[in-house]
Amino acid sequence: MNKQYLVEQIRLKRTFLCVGLDTDLTKVPPCVLDADDEPIFTFNKAIIDATAPYCVAYKPNLAFYEPYGLQGWEALARTAEYLRENYPDHFLIADAKRGDIGNTSRQYARAVFEDMDFDAVTVAPYMGEDSVIPFLDYDGRWVVLLALTSNRGSQDFQLMVDDQGERLFERVLRRAQDWASDERMMFVVGATQGRLFEDVRRIVPHHFLLVPGVGAQGGSLEDVCRYGMTPRCGLLVNSSRGIIYADHSERYAEAAAEAAKTLQSEMDEMLKKYSEL
Amino acid sequence: MNKQYLVEQIRLKRTFLCVGLDTDLTKVPPCVLDADDEPIFTFNKAIIDATAPYCVAYKPNLAFYEPYGLQGWEALARTAEYLRENYPDHFLIADAKRGDIGNTSRQYARAVFEDMDFDAVTVAPYMGEDSVIPFLDYDGRWVVLLALTSNRGSQDFQLMVDDQGERLFERVLRRAQDWASDERMMFVVGATQGRLFEDVRRIVPHHFLLVPGVGAQGGSLEDVCRYGMTPRCGLLVNSSRGIIYADHSERYAEAAAEAAKTLQSEMDEMLKKYSEL
Repeated sequence: MNKQYLVEQIRLKRTFLCVGLDTDLTKVPPCVLDADDEPIFTFNKAIIDATAPYCVAYKPNLAFYEPYGLQGWEALARTAEYLRENYPDHFLIADAKRGDIGNTSRQYARAVFEDMDFDAVTVAPYMGEDSVIPFLDYDGRWVVLLALTSNRGSQDFQLMVDDQGERLFERVLRRAQDWASDERMMFVVGATQGRLFEDVRRIVPHHFLLVPGVGAQGGSLEDVCRYGMTPRCGLLVNSSRGIIYADHSERYAEAAAEAAKTLQSEMDEMLKKYSEL
Repeated sequence: MNKQYLVEQIRLKRTFLCVGLDTDLTKVPPCVLDADDEPIFTFNKAIIDATAPYCVAYKPNLAFYEPYGLQGWEALARTAEYLRENYPDHFLIADAKRGDIGNTSRQYARAVFEDMDFDAVTVAPYMGEDSVIPFLDYDGRWVVLLALTSNRGSQDFQLMVDDQGERLFERVLRRAQDWASDERMMFVVGATQGRLFEDVRRIVPHHFLLVPGVGAQGGSLEDVCRYGMTPRCGLLVNSSRGIIYADHSERYAEAAAEAAKTLQSEMDEMLKKYSEL
């Protein structure tokens, strides 16, 4: 999916919500576990069908599928396939935070772009240029590079300042622009980072930012938009737990739809207030 | 496996070789592909049986299994199980370079330590303390943290210098010592880094280092040992392509054994020259 198409979806649907499919069998409603021998996919399908009108993107986090071995991997592949076939207007992100030496990153890229048909993959920048480039060899696919994450540990290394006053996350943002344009690359910036969004926007005024941390992690949607939104939106704000575990009864999908709709409605306000869409 | 046991294996077998199982079906000999419907596991098993006397560790890189979807995941799980059952004295590293916010890293840890029974997992440090700690919740299991990698891109961020003169990889080494001792943590330092091993050893004089980059990537075993070996060895030197693709004919396993044996013999010399083992 190209950038223009994504922006058009945001403008039409009045939402920049990404629903995180962090499906954990210890947290899904009992009715899902009881009814089915494919509970992960069953849960995902119900969540997707319920929330699709209120979001423009889905983001399964691969970590939640890997502990279930073959069953988990199959559920992930089926989820990606189901999304691709039934919701072709949604942007699909594999949240994998991969990154390795060149010939190895190439294998990870094959997994998410060939074996599964994702639009984008999250990548960790620690190993530098040649660990990121192989993910960019696929025309029309995106890299979402970690810059300033939502967690407490983001302070350990990402805020390190060099002798010119540049912080590590700023160096990542700056260097990554040599590797791809804003048509092929986005950056992860956590909703908990508040006014640091202004510093991010000084370096990447036009890039899309993938923003986790609204909801369970305590980030403010209003702050993210005030400091991070561009005239063309430039934000995909992710919510996982707040949507997919909104209710633990048989009406979990309905509750997920309501939670997503509430966020969509707030996002519509934000688009009117801070963007030109 | 604890540190003392690993050192004892190195002393007894006169080797600190780790064989990297980066199994790529486009590179395995035709005879493997022709003979079998489980070529990845068949290849791994033959390589393991041939090389086990000459190494103390095995390291499948998960990237090479993921592009094959279910088939790849099953081959990885079978390989880990085969190693665990038949070679209990070998140290098993899942080369995964994972790392995410706390509740997500916990899922990755479940995958490698519960679903599969690895001794250790490689972790990327970019997201800081709370992305690493969940991997340390498993008694007796190890984190192998990226510090200074073997690739060209290691220069992009890992050598960044702060206003006190400390480089990013040094900050990672220093901070990580607050998270676990040398009984639970190792660091990745690339064989291509030459005398920078001395700077690493100034900060972590006793930790094991996992060293990729000898062979195909051009690192020198002698340099690694001269600047990085401790009295108790403190090194696991990995070789992947140089061993597993040593020959493309039906005698590929025999050739792998010869390549591993040659390294073992060089390592014996290094242990005599630079360690007390």
